[in-house]
Amino acid sequence: MASSARRRVLLRDVAEHAGVSSATASLVLGGRDVRVSEDTRQRILRAARELDYRPNLMARSLRTQVSSTIGLVADTIITGHYGGDIIRGALTASLEHGHRLLICESEGDPKLEPVLVDDLVARQVDGILFTTASHDVVELPAALADQRVVLVNCEAGPGVPSVVPDEVEGGRAAARLLTDAGHREGIVLVGETLTRKLPAQRRLEGLLAGLAAAGTGFADRIDCAWWPEAGFDALTEALASGLRPRALVCLNDRIALGAYQALAAAGLSVPGDVSVVSFDDSELASWLRPTLSTIALPEFDMGRTAVDLLLGDDPPAGVVLVPMPVRERASVAPPSSR
Amino acid sequence: MASSARRRVLLRDVAEHAGVSSATASLVLGGRDVRVSEDTRQRILRAARELDYRPNLMARSLRTQVSSTIGLVADTIITGHYGGDIIRGALTASLEHGHRLLICESEGDPKLEPVLVDDLVARQVDGILFTTASHDVVELPAALADQRVVLVNCEAGPGVPSVVPDEVEGGRAAARLLTDAGHREGIVLVGETLTRKLPAQRRLEGLLAGLAAAGTGFADRIDCAWWPEAGFDALTEALASGLRPRALVCLNDRIALGAYQALAAAGLSVPGDVSVVSFDDSELASWLRPTLSTIALPEFDMGRTAVDLLLGDDPPAGVVLVPMPVRERASVAPPSSR
Repeated sequence: MASSARRRVLLRDVAEHAGVSSATASLVLGGRDVRVSEDTRQRILRAARELDYRPNLMARSLRTQVSSTIGLVADTIITGHYGGDIIRGALTASLEHGHRLLICESEGDPKLEPVLVDDLVARQVDGILFTTASHDVVELPAALADQRVVLVNCEAGPGVPSVVPDEVEGGRAAARLLTDAGHREGIVLVGETLTRKLPAQRRLEGLLAGLAAAGTGFADRIDCAWWPEAGFDALTEALASGLRPRALVCLNDRIALGAYQALAAAGLSVPGDVSVVSFDDSELASWLRPTLSTIALPEFDMGRTAVDLLLGDDPPAGVVLVPMPVRERASVAPPSSR
Repeated sequence: MASSARRRVLLRDVAEHAGVSSATASLVLGGRDVRVSEDTRQRILRAARELDYRPNLMARSLRTQVSSTIGLVADTIITGHYGGDIIRGALTASLEHGHRLLICESEGDPKLEPVLVDDLVARQVDGILFTTASHDVVELPAALADQRVVLVNCEAGPGVPSVVPDEVEGGRAAARLLTDAGHREGIVLVGETLTRKLPAQRRLEGLLAGLAAAGTGFADRIDCAWWPEAGFDALTEALASGLRPRALVCLNDRIALGAYQALAAAGLSVPGDVSVVSFDDSELASWLRPTLSTIALPEFDMGRTAVDLLLGDDPPAGVVLVPMPVRERASVAPPSSR
């Protein structure tokens, strides 16, 4: 679905070819009076010709006073530190399509959502992205029922266009990181799977399938909230009770931080004594020592895909799964021969 | 300046008094048809009477189809993971004033900024917040010259209204955390002060003044970029060369993470062997073990103050300094008697 949208030559291809930002390419090709050198301008026009770039009709609005615009309604993305790359992806794709992106946020207040939607509609946006910081099932605000809308990182039942991470396949990939390194025994899951319903259950489904494919499964499960301190406390207690894991699967990077701290406090090394894999690929994952192997949330691609679909001819009637990239770093090694 | 604005009874006071969100109070007091219980509605109206709340004239626009609106132009706040609380503060204050907040982001592309400003102006916003992820001196887009504007986290020379952290006083507070604990010797600064001009130089100015007030100064300075790996590498090298610090002042929390990792690798404990203080109060600060004492960036207050000023009768002609709160945690102890 997303791949068919990508086969078209997009503004970003032209920009890359010409070695300029999408914004600059958009302005030059839109005929705006921009302060770039004649050389740069010609390079962009040449790139557009070489790639046979056909600007979206809507891109023409760049030349008008008030351009075509997409509205984005978020719950706590901007203010809650998670999901920002969804907006970055949506912003990049909006520029490519010659659209502006107007963003507003409800701080998770369901009473505010219909007001924000009405407001964007009154401002004549061409479509609306409705997006949440946590992947979940949501009730679609009634005001969106008549609108051209794509959900991002949330789902609202059959027929509603929605772009979410492929968590099941992500779970399989996490399992493969361990089984490919030779792990079969002492693999322990860290993180509760009850309250974070969608990501937890789908990651778990993929993990169990991936481990089963290698003829193994979890040796144990440690329940804890998805935060560093909870991960530290739960793993510290489990180690004190005699648990000797050889590999941990943490359900997000914050739990993995707590796990690193608990292993260090117990005198266990990563990955010498215990391998660790995780999910999300937050900044934390590359800051930890050793760096953390993790399955990335594809936020940027989700935002970009959602805009392509929103402005495309044929928005999907249902859920589009975006692959979760595997970030192989330094936290996995073959099992030690203790 | 900000304090005089705060003495007025605001919507948030009413909301707090009634035990509801600002959004709900705003909708009820604005006469909107909201699905809240009659009991809740009465509680909000009673709170408004008891506190003698006088709604801003502009709040009336809540009743109209398209409400009064503030535009916010950011560089990389949403997409870069830093500064999100500025937007949260602006959002909260906008709701209190009965305004919507329309956000757009340039991804730091200076060619895009005037386009976004023109666009917001064409949508008839009542004023514009112009804000940056890093505290810096900026050139104001020409399009903003005729607009009602308040800068947040950046400055553009004399006369331009601007809300920024009080970095100098923050530096003094960091010094006091150490000197109050008894530190006088072996205090080492970690982090370069050349490229991050404004925060670095003002933090340093306050630190030097604070240490001098206690009759001391820095024993050494370690230059490194403001990232975990750079902090780890630079401190590891300094320790290998024989440096024996008793206290570190890290210029942000990310450097402090690297410092924690380097101290642990060298077998030194925090705060037993080495005390650590830092700046920013990112999430990291409360996730580290031991938790990190740090001087907080007052992002939420900056966003809120900026909206109060933008919609106030008398916007300031110059820079408004917002205090940086001190977060005392577990990383500072009296110097050990080695």
